[in-house]
Amino acid sequence: MQCVKVLGGVLGAAALLGLGIILGHFAIPKGTDLPAPSASASQDLDLEILEAVMGQLDADRIRENLRELSKEPHLATSPRDEVLVQLLLRRWQDPESGLDSAGTSEYEVLLSFPSQKQPNRVDVVGPAGGILFSSQRSEENLTGEQGDPNVVPPYAAYAPPGTPQAVNAAKYGVSGVLVYTDPADINDGKSLPNETFPHSWGLPPSGVERGSYFEYFGDPLTPYLPANPSSFRLDSDNASGFPPIPTQPIGFKDAEVLLCNLQGASAPAAWQGALGCDYKLGPGFRSDGIFPAGSQVNVSVYNRLELRNSSNVLGIIRGAVEPDRYVLYGNHRDSWVHGAVDPSSGTAVLLELSRVLGTLLKKGTWRPRRSIVFASWGAEEFGLIGSTEFTEESFSKLQERAVAYINVDISVFANATLRAQGTPPVQSVIFSAAKQIRAPGPSSLSIYDNWIRYSNRSSPVYGLVPSLGTLGAGSDYAPFIHFLGISSMDIAYTYDRGKTSARIYPTYHTAFDTFDYVDKFVDPGFSSHQAVARTVGSVLLRLSDSLFLPLNVSDYSETLRSLLQAAQQDLGGLLEQHNISLGPLVTAVEKFEEAATVLGQHISALQKGTPDPLQVRMLNDQLMLLERTFLNSRAFPEERYYSHVLWAPRTGSVATFPGLSNACSKAMNTGPRSAAWAEVQRQLSILVVALEGAAATLRPVADLW
Amino acid sequence: MQCVKVLGGVLGAAALLGLGIILGHFAIPKGTDLPAPSASASQDLDLEILEAVMGQLDADRIRENLRELSKEPHLATSPRDEVLVQLLLRRWQDPESGLDSAGTSEYEVLLSFPSQKQPNRVDVVGPAGGILFSSQRSEENLTGEQGDPNVVPPYAAYAPPGTPQAVNAAKYGVSGVLVYTDPADINDGKSLPNETFPHSWGLPPSGVERGSYFEYFGDPLTPYLPANPSSFRLDSDNASGFPPIPTQPIGFKDAEVLLCNLQGASAPAAWQGALGCDYKLGPGFRSDGIFPAGSQVNVSVYNRLELRNSSNVLGIIRGAVEPDRYVLYGNHRDSWVHGAVDPSSGTAVLLELSRVLGTLLKKGTWRPRRSIVFASWGAEEFGLIGSTEFTEESFSKLQERAVAYINVDISVFANATLRAQGTPPVQSVIFSAAKQIRAPGPSSLSIYDNWIRYSNRSSPVYGLVPSLGTLGAGSDYAPFIHFLGISSMDIAYTYDRGKTSARIYPTYHTAFDTFDYVDKFVDPGFSSHQAVARTVGSVLLRLSDSLFLPLNVSDYSETLRSLLQAAQQDLGGLLEQHNISLGPLVTAVEKFEEAATVLGQHISALQKGTPDPLQVRMLNDQLMLLERTFLNSRAFPEERYYSHVLWAPRTGSVATFPGLSNACSKAMNTGPRSAAWAEVQRQLSILVVALEGAAATLRPVADLW
Repeated sequence: MQCVKVLGGVLGAAALLGLGIILGHFAIPKGTDLPAPSASASQDLDLEILEAVMGQLDADRIRENLRELSKEPHLATSPRDEVLVQLLLRRWQDPESGLDSAGTSEYEVLLSFPSQKQPNRVDVVGPAGGILFSSQRSEENLTGEQGDPNVVPPYAAYAPPGTPQAVNAAKYGVSGVLVYTDPADINDGKSLPNETFPHSWGLPPSGVERGSYFEYFGDPLTPYLPANPSSFRLDSDNASGFPPIPTQPIGFKDAEVLLCNLQGASAPAAWQGALGCDYKLGPGFRSDGIFPAGSQVNVSVYNRLELRNSSNVLGIIRGAVEPDRYVLYGNHRDSWVHGAVDPSSGTAVLLELSRVLGTLLKKGTWRPRRSIVFASWGAEEFGLIGSTEFTEESFSKLQERAVAYINVDISVFANATLRAQGTPPVQSVIFSAAKQIRAPGPSSLSIYDNWIRYSNRSSPVYGLVPSLGTLGAGSDYAPFIHFLGISSMDIAYTYDRGKTSARIYPTYHTAFDTFDYVDKFVDPGFSSHQAVARTVGSVLLRLSDSLFLPLNVSDYSETLRSLLQAAQQDLGGLLEQHNISLGPLVTAVEKFEEAATVLGQHISALQKGTPDPLQVRMLNDQLMLLERTFLNSRAFPEERYYSHVLWAPRTGSVATFPGLSNACSKAMNTGPRSAAWAEVQRQLSILVVALEGAAATLRPVADLW
Repeated sequence: MQCVKVLGGVLGAAALLGLGIILGHFAIPKGTDLPAPSASASQDLDLEILEAVMGQLDADRIRENLRELSKEPHLATSPRDEVLVQLLLRRWQDPESGLDSAGTSEYEVLLSFPSQKQPNRVDVVGPAGGILFSSQRSEENLTGEQGDPNVVPPYAAYAPPGTPQAVNAAKYGVSGVLVYTDPADINDGKSLPNETFPHSWGLPPSGVERGSYFEYFGDPLTPYLPANPSSFRLDSDNASGFPPIPTQPIGFKDAEVLLCNLQGASAPAAWQGALGCDYKLGPGFRSDGIFPAGSQVNVSVYNRLELRNSSNVLGIIRGAVEPDRYVLYGNHRDSWVHGAVDPSSGTAVLLELSRVLGTLLKKGTWRPRRSIVFASWGAEEFGLIGSTEFTEESFSKLQERAVAYINVDISVFANATLRAQGTPPVQSVIFSAAKQIRAPGPSSLSIYDNWIRYSNRSSPVYGLVPSLGTLGAGSDYAPFIHFLGISSMDIAYTYDRGKTSARIYPTYHTAFDTFDYVDKFVDPGFSSHQAVARTVGSVLLRLSDSLFLPLNVSDYSETLRSLLQAAQQDLGGLLEQHNISLGPLVTAVEKFEEAATVLGQHISALQKGTPDPLQVRMLNDQLMLLERTFLNSRAFPEERYYSHVLWAPRTGSVATFPGLSNACSKAMNTGPRSAAWAEVQRQLSILVVALEGAAATLRPVADLW
């Protein structure tokens, strides 16, 4: 059963990294490109409008949005998911508070569901074949919502069907996997019913975390192609990335029965948890426990793969001056169950922000300089499917025209502080927004000043600043940053880590993630939701309305320098032994730093004068397209979609450029003429070429190469 | 010996497709982006300037350029090649007729040369081991130039060394290849010394066509990476694309001795030539010939691979209004021997055009709206190496900013008519230029009206028009169109096909391609060179100075429709049998047609008013980037660089979209569930997605996806 705990941990990461949606074709009236009023070509961000938007973002309306969105379970492609599609459409097509246009886009994608006729089950079978114990098939109905017939029973999506029987995993013969979430990891150790929801925000003993066990993202049958009905599809037998063996999640109450009756040597200290017994490694049940000798665990999984139609909903506000520049802001719509926190807390904010902006638009008070695209993605929980299919379908348009992608999935994990992840160019615009808005709560600090108290780092350039996290693949920003090279960010309010070590909010992906849970425990009064709405609103307006794009590309210099230093310190000696020089990489980083500095000075000088609109456009193109220069579709042939040479997954131990780190890890114990060392050199060259190319695009545009 | 003739034919194609150069780093003063005078942001093409440029392009100066360029052999990386690098730099840095800046860029690339110590040789060895016949080691010194010590002996670049001995090829055991050019293919049958150069433009009996036998293009050791000194390199043993067996070209005089003494069955009629005997298939020499029974042909090849530094020369005229938009115009500099036609006839034109434009620039009379980049590529003859390395190094800048690439390699094959190749968007600008300029010769026809007499087609849209050829990979445009998706063209003056069926001008790649050859036989008076200079000059100015880019994207509609019709007619039945529908492809083509039509109407309407500069820029971005939307780097995993879904190499027999045609060819005789049929479906999907994406980028920019 060691796998259970270990996989529990892995699942934590995987599930945290796995929230989901899907697309097709719009059947909506065509927009037209109205002539831009040239008078406004030099118009900058209007601070009065910005203030008005901040003021109009209403906590109560967010709360009401959340109540409606999370009223019923809305698993991807379920009838309620479709109801919410219509809700979004109505909102975005509202004559008084809607957008210029809105429509849906449908994709036919491969999802995985438990069988309705044959429930998945975990039993302990005695030596005579009798069933001695069965796991709960559903969560306990503690607040009424858990009894909704549309609650999907706990399952591990994409885990194959099968009925393995064993007690625990032989090292190389695992035939099935059970997964549970230990109270030590999710409840700060608390495990009793009266210590958990509905008495606190803790996970009840019967709560089971659902999740997708698909290794990649996007529709499994149509990698790199949009999942339109006519698209080429792999046979599901030929698709890759599915778990190889049956897998089933269970609650910690059931896990306790199994785990606390195991025999064998004690598990390592790091594997022990809060179930109230010493965790053993097996094999087999202990003789003094509740199961007779020879009892076995029988796991029955009846999951089925199904092609389903999943919708994205998109809405657009046409830019007045540069309609061909898109600022995208999205979240997924589908949930595992009621999904009040995940994802409806984000969608509630999205709807409130689109209402406020839509109202200004319909009144004629405001129209952004650039186009704003709002998106509600489908089937994210199954593997970022809706957003990925969208990027596959709109690859060229987005690559040519997208300024940035803002993601707000779970908007409030907890109400202590802002948390933001993104690539370096978005740091400055998030900081600007955060400085302008008061943090919720009794203090009079700004969101920025509150944030810096919880999470900070020392920047060589700026001194102490809030710490901007990096983007993994935990939500719909993944295809935007990794596949398309669009500067992206993810914004939320989150925990005081001094108060909880919970891996994530406790009812994550369970039937207990309900409106009341949010209303009572996560964000009573919804002031953190409002703070996120204001932060995102400010970021969005700055990106869409500022004359000069507020993407500070020179903040990449700091990142590159730090990755370079890690390479020098932790890999320099090893590389030298193999006659591989970091010299060209050093030179490339220096070139980038110099070009970014000069460009920054150029922008500052221009901002003091009255720049020509074409000059501004050219400069903004440099800023917008910088992130694209880090893409190399041939850099990581074994990864799907990942092509950003700075943010691809790092498996190597040294915290430097991922291609270099990973290749060095693999080469470390091979001979000097191995293919693995050649790959180290290839990765270095790919990196140097990308950085040189990035520097070149920042230099004066008529410089000779 | 059948291989000889067959390979001769293949070589024809390969060599025609293979003309060459290389790059590194500039050490030149930085340009600066001077503020654009906003007064000129709406300035359109100035017809007076255009007329002035046409008038100043001087035939005598082109002739003098050619004399200097072709004075000595200038094989890639030879001392004379470096002298020409300096000549180009001097011209482009001239204070009175130079460009804004110019510089060189050096790459370290893998070339192939014959050994100086051990000449390649082809001998007939008698049964006793005595040498009965030896091929000529060099061409006859007919005009003095052939005696230059720097003439590289005939060889097949990249053919491996080896000394196979045989008489002719066993079907599956070929150990070496001899290649020659038959007088039937190159001299309209003429083969006698007094019928050939220096008495006519015919190939002398001792002439040998050199060429590169590398299968791909670009530096063989650094695919997809620029060949900078520090770049990762494959071991040459791991590099692919080299011929597997020793190969050597010989003259038709030597070929006659071997071929006319063969015994065996007669070769097929299509393989017969003009050597004055019946070509036999062997094996072995005939008993009544000049070689005793048991004689063998001994081929000794001592070619060596060498890493060499090759330079590109680049020069730029900074655009006044949109310096970040580049119109590129280039040709290679290196030749096999003196290279008067190939490539110096092109470079002579390039230098004259840069002189005329440079003079206007330095006088302050003119500065283009967009930047113009002039390029002299290195090592093209070895496989488009200089241009390919440039595109690898400058991938991001070019993909974001390049408007079009103009290639003029051999500018004059013959003096009958213009010949142009390109993608559909460049047709209209070439036509506009060709209509404006008088054709050389006694008639008073325009170049366009003369052209249509020699080569035309019936366009469903325009009626009878000159026929624009498609781009293969015959010169330096290949990486621009196939790897980067930049609209490209190749322009030259060429043959009256009623007068010659020569595969190419007869002294191609031999030591007889000299200044006198051009001056006496190819273009006496240089009026065809001047006509090409004017055509290219007009195209270049239109692309750089027109307010609206003169790229007629709707001309792609005609191409797509015709490719679709071929698919429907010639593959429709087959596909239907396998339940594969062309419906989605039909829909995608229709969407493209509609979007292109609407965009065309939009442009026409705007042109009637006083469009805002930003509006023009947005529209031009749509036009510029259309070609990029046809790229898919994953479409053809077995091809190197080719990623344009419309212009990748077609090996299938049906003249339709290459991916579809090729996949159908391979699937045709496989079972219905084969991987080959899945590939047909995958190719169809790739195509549909590309066309839908192309249509989407042409639609109004704020249309919802």
